[in-house]
Amino acid sequence: MTRTQVGIIGAGPAGLMLSHLLHLAGIDSVILESRSRRAIEETIRAGVLEQSTVDLMVETGVGDRLKREGFLHHGFEFRFEGHGHRIDLAALTGGRSITVYAQHEVLKDLIQARLDAGADIRFDMRDVALHDVATSPRITFTDRDGRAGELACELVGGCDGSYGVSRPAIPHESRRDYLRIYPFGWFGILAEAPPSSDELIYARHERGFALISTRSQEVQRMYFQCDPSDNVDNWSEDRIWDELQTRTEGDGFRLKEGRIFQKNIVPMRSFVCEPMQYGRLFIAGDAAHTVPPTGAKGLNLAVADIFVLARAMERYLKSGADDGLQSYSATALRRIWRAQHFSWWMTSMLHRFEEATEFDRRRQLAELDLVTSSEAAARTVAENYVGLPLT
Amino acid sequence: MTRTQVGIIGAGPAGLMLSHLLHLAGIDSVILESRSRRAIEETIRAGVLEQSTVDLMVETGVGDRLKREGFLHHGFEFRFEGHGHRIDLAALTGGRSITVYAQHEVLKDLIQARLDAGADIRFDMRDVALHDVATSPRITFTDRDGRAGELACELVGGCDGSYGVSRPAIPHESRRDYLRIYPFGWFGILAEAPPSSDELIYARHERGFALISTRSQEVQRMYFQCDPSDNVDNWSEDRIWDELQTRTEGDGFRLKEGRIFQKNIVPMRSFVCEPMQYGRLFIAGDAAHTVPPTGAKGLNLAVADIFVLARAMERYLKSGADDGLQSYSATALRRIWRAQHFSWWMTSMLHRFEEATEFDRRRQLAELDLVTSSEAAARTVAENYVGLPLT
Repeated sequence: MTRTQVGIIGAGPAGLMLSHLLHLAGIDSVILESRSRRAIEETIRAGVLEQSTVDLMVETGVGDRLKREGFLHHGFEFRFEGHGHRIDLAALTGGRSITVYAQHEVLKDLIQARLDAGADIRFDMRDVALHDVATSPRITFTDRDGRAGELACELVGGCDGSYGVSRPAIPHESRRDYLRIYPFGWFGILAEAPPSSDELIYARHERGFALISTRSQEVQRMYFQCDPSDNVDNWSEDRIWDELQTRTEGDGFRLKEGRIFQKNIVPMRSFVCEPMQYGRLFIAGDAAHTVPPTGAKGLNLAVADIFVLARAMERYLKSGADDGLQSYSATALRRIWRAQHFSWWMTSMLHRFEEATEFDRRRQLAELDLVTSSEAAARTVAENYVGLPLT
Repeated sequence: MTRTQVGIIGAGPAGLMLSHLLHLAGIDSVILESRSRRAIEETIRAGVLEQSTVDLMVETGVGDRLKREGFLHHGFEFRFEGHGHRIDLAALTGGRSITVYAQHEVLKDLIQARLDAGADIRFDMRDVALHDVATSPRITFTDRDGRAGELACELVGGCDGSYGVSRPAIPHESRRDYLRIYPFGWFGILAEAPPSSDELIYARHERGFALISTRSQEVQRMYFQCDPSDNVDNWSEDRIWDELQTRTEGDGFRLKEGRIFQKNIVPMRSFVCEPMQYGRLFIAGDAAHTVPPTGAKGLNLAVADIFVLARAMERYLKSGADDGLQSYSATALRRIWRAQHFSWWMTSMLHRFEEATEFDRRRQLAELDLVTSSEAAARTVAENYVGLPLT
């Protein structure tokens, strides 16, 4: 049996950042991860990093490549009724901005930093199971050689995502799940094409939402609202480009097309589990909540959870005081619900809802008129988009 | 047959203000009204006047009593989860505020001013009908003595409310109606009691919305969300006070109770007719649109329509240029849709929706958290509540 101070399940953004921050505070942890390192590092994921996420990575020494290779965006565009309207993030938030840097790049940087510091990260673990989390936690698993293993720890960080074992370890009667499933999905593509725009474009069209984003000078990522039960094989390259061109047309704008080398359909849902604690188990990131991608909050919310949790764990492990651990859930949840609201707001403002009446559609346009013509409303969008300060 | 420059149907806020502003510009009008003067002046109606409405009344000489008797409010309270949160309207909008002054008092002042200036206002008119509005408008009617009458005019102001004859005079194929009916109503009371609060309270409670407002030191007006098909006779005084106390409880707050001398149930709907013109007929106020009362926009929107329309009519009648008349509908509709959005927003943020999931309810609370803790979001509420400048 291995012993450590904090057992962490999951080597995603939450688990790796928790291990990293604890290490900086002199606290040991072990990470158990079911996937391979390669699978984690090569699964291409979008990434919009809030100012606070970037700041935290830079301040804790894992931001060098991010600063070098990430794309700093000082604004984005709302596009509707054939016109673009820029939201000047920097001007509206006193200089704050977002950085486009893919999630798997963040993971590569965190994994490298943890391994360089001698961390115990165990990839390819199977049969991970939690025991006695209310009192004296143990985590059992089967390692890559098929041998049974066990990890004893004082605290557990449950960072294994929506479908992991951590959330189910909180008994049903001790938690409440909140779920909203949207009646649409996002059809995502990666295309070999030059950028069509320097900044992200969030487009609202009668046919549905579209998002134009950039990965590099050569590769672009775009999305459009679709039936979540649709099949990517129903969509030829021509049909995809026609749809994207239609949804973003106006002001002479024209997307630059190219070979599409990846297609996938992302479902859209909102989920929150309350509380995020059970005994000595603390869940964070996607293990505790899911946001629709419209607000670009997923990774950032995981980092914000961990910022609160790491400090609380440090205080407890160094002084025995558990006030931070006791308030972790409530503290994190306030930000989470704010982010849920923001993600829902962006989603509701930009998507086509089949059940919407003509009144609803005109009201939706009036809301876009508000957020693109009122400084206060634009600032509300901007402040939430670049992210609230970590607390 | 009588001839006038502008025939106005309806002696509500829109019709009277139109006649008043045209008079100041040296333009003659005649108002035809189906109700009696007494009915108009004695039907008690709530009234929250935007800063711009107050300014316009004062600047055009009908604001003396309003300034003397109206209650200036520099803020209001959002109340939820047992706590009050003040929205400081003045601080958030650079000194703008609202004035609580009942609609029928506005009407009394406008009627008096028009009559003092020798206006031709015909009350108790029946069978009012519009003819040839596309070319050479005539209005026929039956006067209080049962005699048929006819009014010929160059332009018509259709200001006769939701159920008047003006909107139907725009042929169906030339207009589009947008309607949203809410699945709840407001139960309104007038009570003989001292004020419970200096400022309006907009309360969100699991049992539904409540609004606490003030009419005078002796009489208070309050509302609570109800089933629109409920009957006021189902509600005893005790039951009403219990419901209001429950929905506003917390922080030691307690409503001051008293004898309830009026009870009524108001349905809630949003409606817009586009365009607001057909030939020489221009509709304004409730004839063209209805907002749910949550945003306190009804009377103010009528005045804002008229501010645009009176100027456009003046320009046409004095110079023959019809550009203002041609753009009236589009100009007014932008503000109207913004107000529709705001009224929907306030309604959606504060009411109980039976079909809402627990996720939706938590998101609703997160939205109230946003508007009471973010300066930008609070300012968005405040700017829309005190009203946009007239344009």
